[in-house]
Formats: sequence, structure tokens, C-alpha cells
Amino acid sequence: MKIGAIKKVLRGVKSGHVSVTQAMDTLKNLPFEDLHFAMVDHHRSLRTGYPEVIYCQGKTNRQIAMIFEKLLKRNKNIMGTRASRDVYEAVKKTAPDAVYHEAARIASVDREKIKKSKGVIAVITAGTSDIPVAEEAAVTAEKLGNEVVRVYDVGVAGIHRLFAGMDRINRAGVLIVVAGMEGALASVVGGLVDKPVIAVPTSVGYGASFGGLAALLAMLNSCASGVGVVNIDNGFGAGFLASKINKLANGRKK
Amino acid sequence: MKIGAIKKVLRGVKSGHVSVTQAMDTLKNLPFEDLHFAMVDHHRSLRTGYPEVIYCQGKTNRQIAMIFEKLLKRNKNIMGTRASRDVYEAVKKTAPDAVYHEAARIASVDREKIKKSKGVIAVITAGTSDIPVAEEAAVTAEKLGNEVVRVYDVGVAGIHRLFAGMDRINRAGVLIVVAGMEGALASVVGGLVDKPVIAVPTSVGYGASFGGLAALLAMLNSCASGVGVVNIDNGFGAGFLASKINKLANGRKK
Amino acid sequence: MKIGAIKKVLRGVKSGHVSVTQAMDTLKNLPFEDLHFAMVDHHRSLRTGYPEVIYCQGKTNRQIAMIFEKLLKRNKNIMGTRASRDVYEAVKKTAPDAVYHEAARIASVDREKIKKSKGVIAVITAGTSDIPVAEEAAVTAEKLGNEVVRVYDVGVAGIHRLFAGMDRINRAGVLIVVAGMEGALASVVGGLVDKPVIAVPTSVGYGASFGGLAALLAMLNSCASGVGVVNIDNGFGAGFLASKINKLANGRKK
Amino acid sequence: MKIGAIKKVLRGVKSGHVSVTQAMDTLKNLPFEDLHFAMVDHHRSLRTGYPEVIYCQGKTNRQIAMIFEKLLKRNKNIMGTRASRDVYEAVKKTAPDAVYHEAARIASVDREKIKKSKGVIAVITAGTSDIPVAEEAAVTAEKLGNEVVRVYDVGVAGIHRLFAGMDRINRAGVLIVVAGMEGALASVVGGLVDKPVIAVPTSVGYGASFGGLAALLAMLNSCASGVGVVNIDNGFGAGFLASKINKLANGRKK
Amino acid sequence: MKIGAIKKVLRGVKSGHVSVTQAMDTLKNLPFEDLHFAMVDHHRSLRTGYPEVIYCQGKTNRQIAMIFEKLLKRNKNIMGTRASRDVYEAVKKTAPDAVYHEAARIASVDREKIKKSKGVIAVITAGTSDIPVAEEAAVTAEKLGNEVVRVYDVGVAGIHRLFAGMDRINRAGVLIVVAGMEGALASVVGGLVDKPVIAVPTSVGYGASFGGLAALLAMLNSCASGVGVVNIDNGFGAGFLASKINKLANGRKK
Amino acid sequence: MKIGAIKKVLRGVKSGHVSVTQAMDTLKNLPFEDLHFAMVDHHRSLRTGYPEVIYCQGKTNRQIAMIFEKLLKRNKNIMGTRASRDVYEAVKKTAPDAVYHEAARIASVDREKIKKSKGVIAVITAGTSDIPVAEEAAVTAEKLGNEVVRVYDVGVAGIHRLFAGMDRINRAGVLIVVAGMEGALASVVGGLVDKPVIAVPTSVGYGASFGGLAALLAMLNSCASGVGVVNIDNGFGAGFLASKINKLANGRKK
Amino acid sequence: MKIGAIKKVLRGVKSGHVSVTQAMDTLKNLPFEDLHFAMVDHHRSLRTGYPEVIYCQGKTNRQIAMIFEKLLKRNKNIMGTRASRDVYEAVKKTAPDAVYHEAARIASVDREKIKKSKGVIAVITAGTSDIPVAEEAAVTAEKLGNEVVRVYDVGVAGIHRLFAGMDRINRAGVLIVVAGMEGALASVVGGLVDKPVIAVPTSVGYGASFGGLAALLAMLNSCASGVGVVNIDNGFGAGFLASKINKLANGRKK
Amino acid sequence: MKIGAIKKVLRGVKSGHVSVTQAMDTLKNLPFEDLHFAMVDHHRSLRTGYPEVIYCQGKTNRQIAMIFEKLLKRNKNIMGTRASRDVYEAVKKTAPDAVYHEAARIASVDREKIKKSKGVIAVITAGTSDIPVAEEAAVTAEKLGNEVVRVYDVGVAGIHRLFAGMDRINRAGVLIVVAGMEGALASVVGGLVDKPVIAVPTSVGYGASFGGLAALLAMLNSCASGVGVVNIDNGFGAGFLASKINKLANGRKK
Repeated sequence: MKIGAIKKVLRGVKSGHVSVTQAMDTLKNLPFEDLHFAMVDHHRSLRTGYPEVIYCQGKTNRQIAMIFEKLLKRNKNIMGTRASRDVYEAVKKTAPDAVYHEAARIASVDREKIKKSKGVIAVITAGTSDIPVAEEAAVTAEKLGNEVVRVYDVGVAGIHRLFAGMDRINRAGVLIVVAGMEGALASVVGGLVDKPVIAVPTSVGYGASFGGLAALLAMLNSCASGVGVVNIDNGFGAGFLASKINKLANGRKK
Repeated sequence: MKIGAIKKVLRGVKSGHVSVTQAMDTLKNLPFEDLHFAMVDHHRSLRTGYPEVIYCQGKTNRQIAMIFEKLLKRNKNIMGTRASRDVYEAVKKTAPDAVYHEAARIASVDREKIKKSKGVIAVITAGTSDIPVAEEAAVTAEKLGNEVVRVYDVGVAGIHRLFAGMDRINRAGVLIVVAGMEGALASVVGGLVDKPVIAVPTSVGYGASFGGLAALLAMLNSCASGVGVVNIDNGFGAGFLASKINKLANGRKK
Repeated sequence: MKIGAIKKVLRGVKSGHVSVTQAMDTLKNLPFEDLHFAMVDHHRSLRTGYPEVIYCQGKTNRQIAMIFEKLLKRNKNIMGTRASRDVYEAVKKTAPDAVYHEAARIASVDREKIKKSKGVIAVITAGTSDIPVAEEAAVTAEKLGNEVVRVYDVGVAGIHRLFAGMDRINRAGVLIVVAGMEGALASVVGGLVDKPVIAVPTSVGYGASFGGLAALLAMLNSCASGVGVVNIDNGFGAGFLASKINKLANGRKK
Repeated sequence: MKIGAIKKVLRGVKSGHVSVTQAMDTLKNLPFEDLHFAMVDHHRSLRTGYPEVIYCQGKTNRQIAMIFEKLLKRNKNIMGTRASRDVYEAVKKTAPDAVYHEAARIASVDREKIKKSKGVIAVITAGTSDIPVAEEAAVTAEKLGNEVVRVYDVGVAGIHRLFAGMDRINRAGVLIVVAGMEGALASVVGGLVDKPVIAVPTSVGYGASFGGLAALLAMLNSCASGVGVVNIDNGFGAGFLASKINKLANGRKK
Repeated sequence: MKIGAIKKVLRGVKSGHVSVTQAMDTLKNLPFEDLHFAMVDHHRSLRTGYPEVIYCQGKTNRQIAMIFEKLLKRNKNIMGTRASRDVYEAVKKTAPDAVYHEAARIASVDREKIKKSKGVIAVITAGTSDIPVAEEAAVTAEKLGNEVVRVYDVGVAGIHRLFAGMDRINRAGVLIVVAGMEGALASVVGGLVDKPVIAVPTSVGYGASFGGLAALLAMLNSCASGVGVVNIDNGFGAGFLASKINKLANGRKK
Repeated sequence: MKIGAIKKVLRGVKSGHVSVTQAMDTLKNLPFEDLHFAMVDHHRSLRTGYPEVIYCQGKTNRQIAMIFEKLLKRNKNIMGTRASRDVYEAVKKTAPDAVYHEAARIASVDREKIKKSKGVIAVITAGTSDIPVAEEAAVTAEKLGNEVVRVYDVGVAGIHRLFAGMDRINRAGVLIVVAGMEGALASVVGGLVDKPVIAVPTSVGYGASFGGLAALLAMLNSCASGVGVVNIDNGFGAGFLASKINKLANGRKK
Repeated sequence: MKIGAIKKVLRGVKSGHVSVTQAMDTLKNLPFEDLHFAMVDHHRSLRTGYPEVIYCQGKTNRQIAMIFEKLLKRNKNIMGTRASRDVYEAVKKTAPDAVYHEAARIASVDREKIKKSKGVIAVITAGTSDIPVAEEAAVTAEKLGNEVVRVYDVGVAGIHRLFAGMDRINRAGVLIVVAGMEGALASVVGGLVDKPVIAVPTSVGYGASFGGLAALLAMLNSCASGVGVVNIDNGFGAGFLASKINKLANGRKK
Repeated sequence: MKIGAIKKVLRGVKSGHVSVTQAMDTLKNLPFEDLHFAMVDHHRSLRTGYPEVIYCQGKTNRQIAMIFEKLLKRNKNIMGTRASRDVYEAVKKTAPDAVYHEAARIASVDREKIKKSKGVIAVITAGTSDIPVAEEAAVTAEKLGNEVVRVYDVGVAGIHRLFAGMDRINRAGVLIVVAGMEGALASVVGGLVDKPVIAVPTSVGYGASFGGLAALLAMLNSCASGVGVVNIDNGFGAGFLASKINKLANGRKK
């Protein structure tokens, strides 16, 4: 262990066996990471009560259960995204108190209460088929300690539905807009509300939607300024970014 | 004229100079189009007063002037699309009564009055940069005998501007929506109005608009039903299709 | 109900309990949609007998059956597109009078007779593999009250078949052309007939058809003017747009 | 003015000349936007001192000068993005106090002091060629009242340069990462700092960068959570979004 | 038969029962193809012994069996491409003399002997995985009456294998080169042999082969002149085109 | 000349000055191509009177003139494709008898008469803008000793024009179809005529033609069997391939 | 064996039974490869102990078992890549001493010891999902006689993990970096270490990763110089290339 | 300066004012980069005589001249890639001993002799248009101290030219293959020679070469194992990587 090596040098300096110049040289030539591993990651220690996150897709049930088991030795809160019910059943054998958020496809263990932030995050969808992605965003944001308001199925083909939801949307400081097909909702919301908008294109659609590409390009080209876009179907990323923004605004006292 | 040739054969049969078998052979071996040319093209004859259309891009000024000269021997009305002012100057030498629609980039000769249809076509744009394409659509529709109402710069980033224009939009039976960037306007208009919508993506934008691809895909994936899409920047095609639809509805008496 | 709230304000004004200034404030701050919900959507009320439409793909049988059940409380006519036979079986438990249009993959309940329009819509396909998309278009148009003539399997590789169908095609005022592979049929039909053409690219093909992209691009670049394109395999959209056009021309008396 | 019209109706109700039912009808049939125009846009009134923004690309110098002239009648602060020096010279004739931010390609008139927010926005670039886009972001954020710290040319090919800039980066609450080529900097920064990151892909590169597509895709697929992406070269959008986030966190007291 | 109808008219003219004007009208209004059907399609009559071709993919076994049954009433030879063994089993119930070419995925009925042409067609593959496509080409060419020589697994990674096959390749007048991955074989063969080369890209490969796109683009950009390319995996089309070329050269005496 | 070297070795063996083992070693170590150069290239010797071909694009006038000069020492006939008039002027200084085919953008020196083949190649275009590519194909085929018939501007939007040209098309044994935009002409021609068709997509078009991609994909997906496709705008390649096919059929007696 | 044939000719020449002219003819007409086969392939003879490689994907278990059986008659070492456990079970029936490298999906027979090279190859992955591709690279390199050090799951989102692995990475002379998603690890490693880097994009990711395209483009555009890229998921190719480089540096004594 | 801070801590330890534990804490919390800047980059010090490299594209002449001036204060050797002759003229004012490699578009100052490595790098091109990219690779490799052999214009359309160059190619330990169009040369060379191959796709070509995409995909899908690919037209990167490989093999003694 290199920490020991540094201590040794310092002790040598103390005892006079090592000159300051020699010590400087030794310190400079220590392998890079020895000293700074902690620093790079010490912001992690600030995140008390935050869940560790496992991306379950492409892993076997057994692998996921093992990762949960291992992480639970050092963590109170864990969430697994893109988790099927099968995954959840496997996790439950390891962690009987695990819960399953079906719509969000998230399995979680929540043994420590997360300190709630003050602000509100709105999650808005164009259609009902966008809800799984929206729920991934919403549950992620909730697990990270944010209040979430859901305004679903308010796509631009019936824009009055969006207007009917404006009251609830206006409560939020950060908006997540989830839409497939042509993704126009992000632009309309971005034009109506003067707050940060995170746009999540979804793979909902067919033909020339090319698996969400149409919505992605539309959102990147939004004529409404102040829209940040995440990957297609990336509800988790949107929830995570919204949480960061909300914490920045409201999480100071922690 | 080949119709004469057929008549001659039939008269020969009648008079007995031509046997039925000979007549059969003659008819079979007549060049394909002789009989059917008329049918294939006879809708042309219905289009009295309609302009012949020349796509000027990629042609030299001299070529365009020559085509105008030649066509004017058989036609009263001609329009050249994608025509620069230079093209117009060249055409004017041949046809001093030619006029230039600068915003639409259309040079035209209008020697016969076109019978006006009853209906109205609305041409709507998201931004001011979409106007050249919109004008190409609008002037095309006007040259084909339609009344056009223009509602420009009503993009979804400031949706109140669109609502402010709804009165004028509601006068029309057919709508042309011209938008670049994310092309969301087509979906919003398509959701507000229960009339045929022709969407024209434009190459307005940069980066991930990929020359209009973003708007094109968005319009093809519109969550509003009843939207037909034409090629990027194809104002002429949109004006032409809108005119066909309007004539179908209102042009019967001609 | 907010309409009641507005009435209450007005009555307050009338009785003198509410000043004009107070009433102005109240009205201004009423949630956006309360007043205008009706207007935005009142064209819906004109569509008596029209079916509500459910896009079934990506929904579970149970979800679809529930939506049917719910909608049937307020609607006489409902159609579900992209419905497998399984979906239909599930719907039938809720609505025993539901019928299934197998080729079109449409399940429908038709409890109120739709007023027929006068005009005719022609649905034309290049090949037999394009028929499911064509039937989606045709049945949609029929459910919306249009007469439909079908001209199938008349692709350009054997162009005489198309000519053999011209009589029937000429009966129609609006044409829907459904084609996969290279999608050339739209251009040929668009060149032969002076009527609005709606082109539907299909995903029929392999290799460099790229799931319908080849046909889509071909139709967007059609050298025949007056062709509007919808999304790949979007039979419903084509039928819906054709119906709008046909109603515009023939549906006035309703 | 329509507000007057509503007042008139209310006064009629008050005086008894208008019945409640008549008033209801009148209100319902008022053009859509009359009542709500203000609401839709009233967040604008909160933005005292904010500049109006003109996107200059694709407009003639004369058009831009005219827009500046017109806007200056109602606004104190205006900024024109994607403005060449030529544009600036044209604007200066109208507004002699206009200034030009050469690197950012922004021409601005700043007649009212913008209230400064407390937080800091860091703008970070991978290379020197990314600086024009970065400056567009930085100057935009400054014009909107934010303090900006610039950390340029710290791309991952020499990651020590990034580490050398961490002190300055850590001062900021919101980070804008501007990178072309493979865009890896966004992921590295996103992994080092637990704050909202806005990633701006640039068109810097050649060959398989495909005009910024490579960087765009990389940023959308960032393995670091909490990265929002804007369009290729969209420095303005990034600065605008960063400002919204920073205001949310620090702009409350205003 | 319409030819009869025309004859009848002519006889009527002859006998005086039909006036010339009436005859003209009748002829003009005959459905388009009646006169020309024969011409358009008369090359079909030359193809005695040629198989009718059914593209089986996307059709049910039952549909295919029915088409075979129907066609066998008018045809002696039929081939079904993209036919699984299942398809073949279904066909055999209708046509017990059907045979199955497993590697080529072709089911055929061959009741009339096809006249053999003189020339030889070489089918060359880069790898063993390209053989199914190559066999589709080879069996197609054989069914159309051509002699085929197969030179398989001679890809450019071991170019000596290709040279070892040159003797057999040199026997042929037309070459079909079938290759996936980078498709380089077409260029190498095209550079070695001064004969028409038909290149067939295959979907063999993974990753950046993008389903055959890499090979397709490579073949289209071949530095060897005189290479014609067909669709990805289109063995049938290559065999058909090669047969046309070979017949042109050698099929005259038939 | 290396053939001499081999002879020398053999004579050494004969005379006993060279042992069999030494001869084996010498032969094995001869540079690869010495023996086989002739074979690899001996088809060149058959091409008496054929032009050497220079692709001029991307070369300077001076480079091209030098290549012409050098080649003319060993060749009678040379053609430069993609040659501007400037290129021609530069070539003329070296070869005063050079001629310029303006429409085809080909500069050529023709000092030896090419033996004419018997067959005819038809070059067909959809529009007038496709003519430069078509002329490149036609002049190439002519320089290679083929008779060419040109049938221009017969695109499918006015299909009667194509039918009017069928007589001339039917004279040919090989067809080259040149079309931009949606490229439908290749399928229509391929369906009408039972002869090899070479399809040349052109970059004529705009927007979603994506520089000829739309036409390219359409031609690759042609529903007409027996269509071989070359690169976008590759008139030379089409003419070269057509010549190979025509020679195969008609060039035997040479 | 043809070498014998040549010897025979030479002996004939020596003995006078064969004239020099006859010998020339014979040599010229020997199949191309006879003489040069050895040269083309003689590097193979240097590869004593190297495994023959079979790409198993797309082959049936039976085919693979047969290829193993056949190859084992002439080879001691064989490896099959992209081999499922099923494939392995099939191979084991033929070669009971076959072993299965599960993570690498490689089945191998290793009957001759491979001479080890001196250098070390490092295989580095961004995430755990990249391990199958990394193992394919690592096992390939090992089978080819290289020492491999594995440094897994050190992606840039937690860059301290990479620094912690630098000691092991610095032992290697050639680096293989395996990463999906945005593929940034290749640039970071390429910037830290002055050694050849082979980058392997993987298909790990979703949405806008487009099956590995995002990582592929990122790696091709790496701002770190000296990065060579192989196909998506091509672990074998990377291991093979790394081995070539390592042998070049360390394999001289063999 | 932080180095001073560390010294201060060490002196405190020495004097007894700072305990070892306190010193450990202080060192751990020092900003990351202070200690390690040198280490991260100290491999640079090993590269004595190596040029600094400037990518000139997109920089003004004045900027480039300034960078040269600044770098020359600390460096003996500098090279600027993608440098036009104009750039060179500007550089020469600052550094009169600068030289210009026209074909390679490289301007360089070479004031210190670079130690030559032993190995040879071969740079091979398919055509003459690929030479600028090839020269960029070759001159880069030479500036880095490698011997380079050039084998140009040996594309696969005339494969005997490649074979004629094999002797020179076989001298090299590392091969760079530069090819546009279909890029087949990389596969052929990779199949002939058992050495590391670096493939450079070029943008040479037109139409479906899509700016070098065709060659890029072909090279990534090469059927020859052991090919590493760099970005389109990236001659510098290829030369740099080849040099790294060659140094690894031959540069040890330095």
C-alpha cells in the first residue's frame, strides 16, 4: 500500500534521515493515483443516502443478485434500472425488502431515508407509450430525494391537454419532457415555460422514426432555447440531471 | 396527326380497300402512344390558363431563356421556379412582360387570366428564414388560380403567435406548413385544425438539422393524423398539391 | 367544472358582489384551458359518428380492452389499428359486437352508421405484400365514411397491369399509392392522373431497402408534382388524410 | 385591444345590459389568444434587462440593422448571434454604441445593466478550435447576467491540462463542455464533477467526424450520468440553458 | 379476349354496321392495355420453358402452395425463391414432383426441359457464408437455361485461392461475384478479367458492415470499371441479369 | 523483358550450365509478376484501338496534359473523362487533334479507327439535367466501338414520352437508364424490356435526394429483375459495362 | 505437388527431352498459383504452433465439428471464435481435449505448445459489459503466444479507476482498449501512454449508440494520435493485430 | 505555486511543527494536479528530437506563425500538418529555415537531427489521388525518425502492379495502406503480408463514396485480420501510429 510509502517518507523527513529535497523527488515520482484516489471520488462521500445504481440490461439475473448482495454490505440504498420483474424476483431472494417499480422497470432497496430537497421536478410525456421512460426518470429523481409531479399524455396533437396541465407544470423548477415520434412537445413546453428543460426522445414510433432518431434530431434542433437532450429512452439520465439541477437550486442546506 | 391515320385505316376498311386482318396489323403496329397519347395526357387540355413550369436550377440563363421562348409559342402562362434575378433578366429579353417574384424566386409570364377557385389555401411558416420556401408555395398556388392567405413566423417557441393567427388560418380549406429546425409546427397545426395539412420541411437550421433531415423526419412522424409531407424546401410541390386538393373541392364548375 | 366558475363570476358582477376589476383579474388567472377547451376541440363535435382511434401496437391486450371499454361509454364507434387477432379476441370480451378486419389488422366497434361522403378514394398497391398497409388505409377511409376502390398488385415491373386498372382509378378523386421496394409506382400514378396523390412507402423489401427508406426517399423525390408522403407503413395516416381531402370536396352537405 | 372588449362585456353584465348567458357566449367565442396572450408570455416581463436575441445567420446586413433599429425602440439590451464583423459594422450605423465580441461572433447593445446572479458558470473546451463556440456560450451567459470562468484547451489527449484547471472548474455550479472530434471531454468532466454538465458538440474535425456527428453521438452516449446535450455548434443554446439553471439556483432574490 | 373486340369493330365497319366515327370512339375508349397488352408483354411468349418466379419471403406456406397450384395450371416450370424447407413441404403436397435446392433456398417444379444456352456463367464467392446467396444466383441461372461454374471461398484475404480458380473463371463469359464484409473481391476480379461482372453484396459480417452496406458501397465504388451491382443478398437478381446477358450473347439461335 | 530471363535459365539448364536446383531457385525467386504479368494483363492486347482512359477530376490541367503527352507515345486513342473545357484547352496544346465532347465532359484523341461492334446500346434519361451523365456513358460506349441510340427526357412523370421512344429503345440489346430524383425510370424500363439494364443514379435533385442516394437506393431495390446499378453519376462505368456486354454478344468476330 | 511438375520440366530440358520452347509454354500455362503459391503463403510456414481460426457465427454445430475434424488432421492447434457452449459441446465429440473459454466465446484445441513472446499486451475495458469482446481479444492474443494483462472496468466516468490500473498498463508494449457507449476511454488511454493503441468499439449501449456506431466514430476521431481502430465487437481482430505488433517487437528470436 | 506549499509542509515536518498525520492530510487534500503534472507528461521528455505538431487547418496564417514562434523558443523541431503554401510563406517569416513538403502539405522546422530507427515503414497507395494523404503519412513517419519506402498507385484494379511492388513492401515491418473509392487494397495487402497494417481511407471518389465512408467501412470490415483503421484522410495519424509500432520493435536502444 502506497499510503504507507508516503508515511515512511514523511517519517524519514521527521527523523532527519530524508532531506526535504529528497522527499520532494520521491513524492513527485510516486505513481499517479496513490495520493489522489480518495480526492477524485470524495464527492461520493457527500452523497449520503444516495442509491448506488446498477444498469441491469445485458446482465443475468444471477449476476444482478450478486451485485446487489455485494453492494448491500457497504450501501443502504440501491436501485437497479432496466430491471424486468424476473430480475426483481432474483434480487428479492438476496434482499427480501426490495421493492419493484413496475412501470419504471426499477428494482430498489431503500434502507435509509433520503433527505428531501425542496424543489419540484415535472415529468411530462407526449403519449402513454412514453410512460415507461418517464417513470424511469420520475422514480430515479424520487430516489435521489426530489419531489416529482407527473403530467402524462399531453402531446401536441391535442394541445389543450397540455394547457390543462400547465398549473401542475408551473409548480416545478425543472422540467423533463419525454416524447417519441416527432418529439415536438419539447419545443412547445420549452416555448411556454422559462425553466430548464431536459428532453428525452423515446423509441416510440415506427418507420421513419428510426428507433427514436426523429425525436432525437427534433429535440436537438428545438427552436425553443434552453433545452438539453439526453440519449433515446434514457429516463435515468434525465432524472439524474434534473436532480443535479434541483439540488443545485434547493439542496444547499444538506 | 395519327388520329387521322387511324381514321384512314377505318375508312379503308369501310370502303373495302383494307381487309380486317390488314387493319388489325396496322393498328397493332402503330407506335404505342398514337392512340393513347391523348388519354394519357388529356387532363392537360383541361388545365386552360395553367402555367407551364420550368425548374431553373442547374440550367444556364441562356437555356432558360430559350425554353421560355419556345414554350411561349404554344402557351400563354409560364412560370420558372428556383429562378435568380439573373435568370429573370435573361428571360425579360425574350419576354418583356415577364415579372419577378423575388421572395419566391419565381419568374413568370402571365398572358391569360387564370380562373380563380373559390377555396383558400393558408401558407404558414415557423420562422422568417422559411419565407422563401413558403413564397414558392404561395405564388405557385396563386398562379394555379387559388386564393392564398399567408401566416408567417408563428413557430411553436412562441405559440401565442400561432393562436393569434388562427382566425386567418381557419379561413382556409387546405393548409401548407413550412418549417425548418425541428419542424414541430406541422404537428401543432395538424392537432388544432381538422383540414388537410401539407408539411414542407426546410433546410433552415444547422448542425444536427442535417440539411432539413430533422424537420423531414419530424413531419413524417407527426403525431397529428392527416399530414402529407413533401421534399425538403419543395415549396412548389406543396403549392401544386394544395392546389389540386382545393380544385377538387372548389374547382368543379370550371 | 370551470364553466360554472365563470358563470359564478359573471353572476357576482351582475349582482354587484364582484367588481369589474375583480372579475377581470379572476378571468385572467383562470387556468388557460378552461375557456378554450371547447374551441380547441369543438371540431370534434362535428365529427358525429366518427370512430375514436386506438393505436394498439405496444399496448397489452388488457390495456386495449380497458380503453375500448372506457371509450364505449362515450362513443358509438371505435377502431383499433395495428391490432392482432389476439387483441381482437380480448376486445370481443368487452364488446361482443366488435368485428375484425384481418388484412387491415383493425378491430372495430361500429354502433352508429357513418354518413357516407360522395367521392371515391382509390387505394393502389405495387405488390401483394403491400396489401396489409393498403387495407389499413382502405378500412380507415371506409370507417370515416368514404367509398373506397381497391386496385392491388399493379407495380411498375408490369406496367400494363396498372393501365388495366386505370378505369377504376379514374373513378376516384383522391389516390393512395402504397409501395415498398423502390416505390416507383407513386411517380408513375402521379404522372398519369391529375388528382391529389398520397404516397405510402412500405417496409416491404430487404437489403438496401433499409426498412422502407428507399421507397420513402423515392416518393419524397417524385418527379411527379403533387404527391404528399406519409410515414413508412402508415396506412392509417394515408386513409385519414385522404378522408380529409375527400370530405373537403364532397362532405359539405353534412 | 381585446382586454377592453372583455371589460365592456363585464360592464354590460354589471349594468344589466348583458345577460350572464350572453356574456358566457361572448367570452367563449372570443378569439383564442385575446385573453391569454399575456399569460403565455408574461414570464417575459420578469426578464428585465435581458437582451432580445437575433440569430443573424442567413439574414442580410440590412435586415439585421432594421431589426436592431426596431427592437431598440422597445428594448435596452439586444444581442445578435452568428454575427460577422460586417454585420456589426451595419448595426453600428443604427446603434453607434453597439459592441462586437469577435471570438463569440456576437454583436450587442447593452444600455441597461443586467443584475448579476451569484453563481458561476464554467465554459470548458477540448481544443483551441472549439473556442468560437465556447465564446458564444460564454458571452451569452454573461449577457444574461452570469459570471463565467473560461477553461480552454484542456482536451483528454493531455488530461493533466484538465486536472490543472480543476480549481477553476470547481468554482462553478454549472459546467458547459465544448468539444469536437470524439467529444470525450464531456464524459471525463462529467465523471469528475458532481454538477450539471451541458455538452456542446462542435463541427471541429474532418472525415468520420461527419460535421460534428461523432462528437454529438459520443456526448449523447456519455457513460457519465447527468449530461445534457445541445445541437452541434450551439454555443448560444448552451449558454442560455446554463443561465436558466444558474438563475434557478441563485436568482431567487431578484 | 380484346383483340377479338377490335376485330369485331373492324368487321362492323366493313359491313357498314359501324360508322367510322363510332369505330374511332370505341377504339379510343378501349381500356388502355387492350391493344398494347401483347406488345408490352409479348416478350413473355418468347420465354417458353422459363419458370414463373415466386418470392416466398413474407408469404405463408398456405399462400405459396396456392400460388403454385394456380400457376401450374398455366405453366410447366415454377421456382420459389427464399423458400424454407417448410415451404417446400407445403408445395410438395400440391406438386409432388417439386424439388428443393436447399443451399439456394429454392423450391421448383421443372416439367419442361429448358433449352440450354451455350455460354457459361461463373458464380464466385469470397467466403463460405456467402454460399446461400451464390446458390440462389447459380440455381436461378441454371433454371433459366445457363451453364454455371461455381468458384467458392476465394476471398482476397488469401488471394492465391482466387488465382487457383482463374482457369474455371476464364471459361465464363459473365461473372457473378458474391461477397460480404468489405466486398473487395468484386474489384479484384473486375481488374483481372475483361468481362461483365455482376457484384452481389451480402449481409455477411457484423458491426460496421451494417447489414451489407459496407460491401454494397465498396462494390458501387469499385475501382475496376464495368461492375454492375444488385441489392444486398439479391442472388436471384444477379442470376437473372447474368442470364439476360448470356442469352444476348449466346441465345440467338433459339 | 523477363520472359527472356526465363528462356536464359532454361537454355542454361539445357546446356548444363545451370543445375535443376539452381533453376528452381531462380524461378521461385523471380519477381511475382514476371511470368504472369502478361496473363493478368493480356486482355489489354486484345483491345486494339481502345482508348486509354484518364479520370481528370482532381488533377491539374498541367498534370492531365502531361499524362496525355506520355500516353500518346504508346497509344493512338486516349479519352479524359470529367474534363472541363479548360482541361481540353490544356490538352490541345499537347495534342492539337484532340476533340472535346462538351455535353459529356470528355476530351479525346482518336488517331486509330475503332472497329465497330454490331449491337446497339440505348442510353435513356429521365430528364434534361441527367444528360451530362448520359453523354458520358454514350460517348464512352462510342469510343469503345459501339453504336449508341439516345432517348432523352422520357421520365415517368409523363410516361407517354417513354412509350413514344420504345421503337428506338427496342433496337438496342443493352440499355443504360440514367435518372436522378426518385430514379423510377429504371424500374419502368426494366419492366417493359427483356434485356440487360444498367441503371445510373444521378445527383440531380435536392433535399431528400441526398446527392443521388434516393435514386441509388430506388434502383438497387428495383422491382424489375435484371437491373445492374453503378455509382451515382458514373456515366463512364455504365458505358464501359454496356460495351463489355455488347462485345460479348456481338464482338466475337473481331 | 506442382513444384514437382516444374522440376520434371527442368529435368526434361536438361536431358534434352523437352525443348526450351516447350518448357516456356509449359511454364506459362501452369496454373497461376503453382509457382507462387508458396511465396504468397510461405509466411504461414513460419507460424508453427499457431492456431487455425474458425469464425463460428452463422455456421451449424455440425459444420463446425466437421471443420475441426478436418483441420485437426493437419493442425495441432485450432481455435473457434464466436462459439457458443453448444458449439463447444459439438466440437468435444470430435476433439475430447477441446477446451472452452466461456467469457471469450472461444473453443480451442491446443495440442502443441506455442512459443511465448517476451512483450506484454494490455487489454483494457470501459465497463463490465465490454468483457466478452475483451476476452475474445485477450484469449486470441494468448493463443498466439503473447502474455496478456487484463485491466477491466476502468471507464472514464470514474477516471481514478483507470489511474489505479496504470501500473499494470505500463507493463505492456501494446494496448487494446475495448469500450462501448461513447468510447472515450481510447482517447484518454491514448493521451496517457506513448504506445500503440488498438481501439475496439463495442455494441454496448442503446438508443443513439446505434449498435456501436457512436463508439466507432469517437475512436476514429480520437484526439490522441496513434490509435488504430477495428470493427465493432471485433475482439479477435484486435488480439490478432496486437500480436503482430508484439511479435514484430519481441518475436525476432523465434 | 503549490510545489512551494509541499516544500513548506515537508519543512514543517522536518522542524517538528507539523506531525506526520497532519502532513498526510495536507498532501491528500492538495489539488489533484500539483504533484503529478510532470509525471503525466514525462514520457514527452523521452521523445528528444521529436517534433511538436500543429494541425493548421482552420487556423489563420497569423495564428500559425505565432504558434511556430512560441514553440521554437522551447523546441528544435516543429511540423505543421494540413499546411497550404500560404501557411508556409507565413511561417518562413518567423522561421526562415522552415521547409515545405508540398505533396504532404507539411511545413516543418528541423533544427535537431532525429535519431533514426532501424525498421522500415512502407506507405502504399491505391491511386495517384491518394498521394497527398500518403505523403502526409510518409513525411510524418520520417520526421519521427523512421525510414519510409513508398509504393504508390498499385490499386487492385491492376493487381500485377501490386505484385511488382511486393519486394519493396516486404522490406518493411509496418505497412500503411492508403486508398479511397472501395478501399479494397487494404484487404489484399493484409492477406499477402503477415505484418501490422494501418489502413487509411481517403475521401477520393464521388457519389456513393460519401466522402470516404465507403472506403472506411470496407477497411473496418476487412476480411484480412490484423488491420487497424484511422480516420478518413488521416495520414498524420497513420504515420504516427506506424512510428510507434516501429519504435517498439526497433527503437529500444535510444
